[in-house]
Amino acid sequence: MVPASRPRPDALKAALAELRARFGARLAEGEAIRVQHGNQLSEVPNEPPDAVLFPETTAEVSVAVGICAKHRVPIIPFGVGSSFEGHVNAPFGGLSIDTSRMKRIVAVHVGDLDCVVEAGVTRTELNRNLRDSGLFFPIDPGADASLGGMVATRASGTNAVRYGTMKDNVLALTVVLPDGSITRTGTRARKSSAGYDLTRLIVGSEGTLAVITEITLRLAGIPEEISGGVCPFPSIEAACEAVITTIQAGIPVARIELMDELHVHACNVYSKLSLPETPLLFLEFHGSAAGVAEQSTRFNEIAAESGGGPFTWATKPEERTRLWQARHNAYWASRALRPTAKGISTDVCVPISRLAVCVAETKSDIAASGLVAPIVGHVGDGNFHVMPLIDFEDRAEVERGYAFVDRLVKRALAHGGTSTGEHGIGQSNRKYMRLEFDDAALGLMHAVKRAIDPNNIMNPGKLLPDV
Amino acid sequence: MVPASRPRPDALKAALAELRARFGARLAEGEAIRVQHGNQLSEVPNEPPDAVLFPETTAEVSVAVGICAKHRVPIIPFGVGSSFEGHVNAPFGGLSIDTSRMKRIVAVHVGDLDCVVEAGVTRTELNRNLRDSGLFFPIDPGADASLGGMVATRASGTNAVRYGTMKDNVLALTVVLPDGSITRTGTRARKSSAGYDLTRLIVGSEGTLAVITEITLRLAGIPEEISGGVCPFPSIEAACEAVITTIQAGIPVARIELMDELHVHACNVYSKLSLPETPLLFLEFHGSAAGVAEQSTRFNEIAAESGGGPFTWATKPEERTRLWQARHNAYWASRALRPTAKGISTDVCVPISRLAVCVAETKSDIAASGLVAPIVGHVGDGNFHVMPLIDFEDRAEVERGYAFVDRLVKRALAHGGTSTGEHGIGQSNRKYMRLEFDDAALGLMHAVKRAIDPNNIMNPGKLLPDV
Repeated sequence: MVPASRPRPDALKAALAELRARFGARLAEGEAIRVQHGNQLSEVPNEPPDAVLFPETTAEVSVAVGICAKHRVPIIPFGVGSSFEGHVNAPFGGLSIDTSRMKRIVAVHVGDLDCVVEAGVTRTELNRNLRDSGLFFPIDPGADASLGGMVATRASGTNAVRYGTMKDNVLALTVVLPDGSITRTGTRARKSSAGYDLTRLIVGSEGTLAVITEITLRLAGIPEEISGGVCPFPSIEAACEAVITTIQAGIPVARIELMDELHVHACNVYSKLSLPETPLLFLEFHGSAAGVAEQSTRFNEIAAESGGGPFTWATKPEERTRLWQARHNAYWASRALRPTAKGISTDVCVPISRLAVCVAETKSDIAASGLVAPIVGHVGDGNFHVMPLIDFEDRAEVERGYAFVDRLVKRALAHGGTSTGEHGIGQSNRKYMRLEFDDAALGLMHAVKRAIDPNNIMNPGKLLPDV
Repeated sequence: MVPASRPRPDALKAALAELRARFGARLAEGEAIRVQHGNQLSEVPNEPPDAVLFPETTAEVSVAVGICAKHRVPIIPFGVGSSFEGHVNAPFGGLSIDTSRMKRIVAVHVGDLDCVVEAGVTRTELNRNLRDSGLFFPIDPGADASLGGMVATRASGTNAVRYGTMKDNVLALTVVLPDGSITRTGTRARKSSAGYDLTRLIVGSEGTLAVITEITLRLAGIPEEISGGVCPFPSIEAACEAVITTIQAGIPVARIELMDELHVHACNVYSKLSLPETPLLFLEFHGSAAGVAEQSTRFNEIAAESGGGPFTWATKPEERTRLWQARHNAYWASRALRPTAKGISTDVCVPISRLAVCVAETKSDIAASGLVAPIVGHVGDGNFHVMPLIDFEDRAEVERGYAFVDRLVKRALAHGGTSTGEHGIGQSNRKYMRLEFDDAALGLMHAVKRAIDPNNIMNPGKLLPDV
């Protein structure tokens, strides 16, 4: 594969001139907007693109990609910039393709429980649009991410334990390939055995193979009954044990989220709550009235066996919203624990039977390292986030932080897990790819990348480790 | 890509000599066994391989693939040969790699609801092994297929409406690549965003990218309660309407299968049953006792609204087994309707809202064509099989049969569906790939194939249409 590189200055100039001629003011070149389109959310250093384009249709994306391809200018797809891992950075410059003007809900097929949306629609925008249909889109990564970005990173979040991840909820995609051609990866059929699974090849490809412009999504029926609340536990191991038993018992919880006591404290302060400052599970049950009652009774029995409880119900929708809002603000609440620090995001995921031991080992490591590092997780999937809050002015502390993250990832892999459950690789997790995959698997990935994007213009410097 | 071709005679000879030296009597070259390893099940003409190898480990598969790669001899992976679409045929000769001696259950992780098995284990062998674990493997395509074959064809079957297809139930694979190297595509974590989805790239690739040797599968808890039975309907449209309403209402049926009156008749004769010879739905509900009762009550209401019923319960496990055995024998029952004929298998799948109209149009087409063609389907997914029973001695009838199949596929595609819900492309559906995918999508598939198998030795002549 051609090594990633900055475009030649004359080629960049020519490409920008063509783009300007075609798109006028929708090509933005000012510094502020460029910086805004590099990574801003996490500790990964900002690397702005050379310009930002705001296309409005798949056809316009195709034209833009064609121009970039001709001049070998890197392309970085951009949703809302809520990635933690540097996905939107432009280490080799190039054109950021911002999909925020691609907001059409193309079709909602209520009878088929699916819809077709443009990539710039965010998940809450879609759900607002669906409100009167009786359906909803269940995948909820917390941030109000664009659906294109969620496809690109194989996102999941709080509801994945019941509804799956983006991998399970995308039926088909319209994409623009690196030569500017447009294609569709599948049909609206619920299942298909026709050919290679191009849909799943693009889901999670982080903009390195194609620009996603339109998405056919599965939807779910809004449950007849939703109930949920919060359950305290005497220790984080006890909370994890309750999660493991719940999953093993086949109770179809819709959400089962862990917060350690430090994280609860942060949420209490940030979201003005008065939750008990012990390890907590946030739960939600979806189903018929009888089904939800049965699920919650069974969960209460399991929690009690682990010494947890009592379960506090949030029966009114507004109470539930407040709780989940607090959960969704977890990132900002954590950051506020140490406002001068930056968080290093982490995202390991282990088989559920290893969750309690992996979290306990991690807790000990945090204590031994003297780090401030709250834990929160989608524990029904075995996925948890530890965020060491690091003073980036203090080089020794930065080293300590990254060394902790290295140990965390190696620990998760040793337990049969993965370095990233839902964030993706981006820039910051590339170094772990060699730990997670052997040479043959990485060779396969490189072969696929090379075959589809031989000039390496699609989001270069992301996902794959250097050869 | 190198066009598929027979190996040079000297190269084939050299490869077979090396294989014989390494594997002795486990390399079989007799005609009977070669014929047995070409397609035998369906009307697709038998094309035997040059030899059949019975490896016992992944390492042995790696050695064999390495030898074939060196001499550019085609490789055709073989499970039990239950494909309908000519997947196991050897149109360019070569080596059939029969996995029937790879039967180890490598690990069952009860706490994680997963297991690791070798590719030659069949689904009923796995379920027998799991019997005392409280878990089961839910994917059930009818035939007692090998799990490797089910991965290769992205199989599904009667339980997919509740438990998903192979795409949803494979966590990771061990595969042998076309150069003989061995790799693992993922971990046991429930979800991951690490890199390209190599697992889903191999699932459904029909042996054209790699030989699958080991599979990490999700398992499900055996439901506390299973109940089911049969519900008659006055017309096939009424039955389909009931299915659509059931799915739209979010009732989590585990199985919902349609048989038209001709198929019911065939089953009555073949399996010595006395089912009412009208369109029938076979159903099964999984859950807690209360949940199953609730589901079946709601289904009964829906069926009654469509004029269906009364529902006949098969409460005892042996009654249920008998019914499902009859359903699983549907293929043989149909064939027995016209013993001198062969069936042309079909496998379209449409969005659920189009099911009733698509089936009704197909029924009219069958009548207008004067064909004998029973219908059976996994209708909860919108997937149905029509099998025209054709006298292959009668050329006009053969033409009429294939013309009907062409119209069926085009009809399904026009309804937003796919040519194959679960059988795969193999040889017989290759001609429909150009109808289902545009040039850019086919170009992507060819690029992937070329990148991974540049010498085109992996199951050549399958899945992809010629360039």
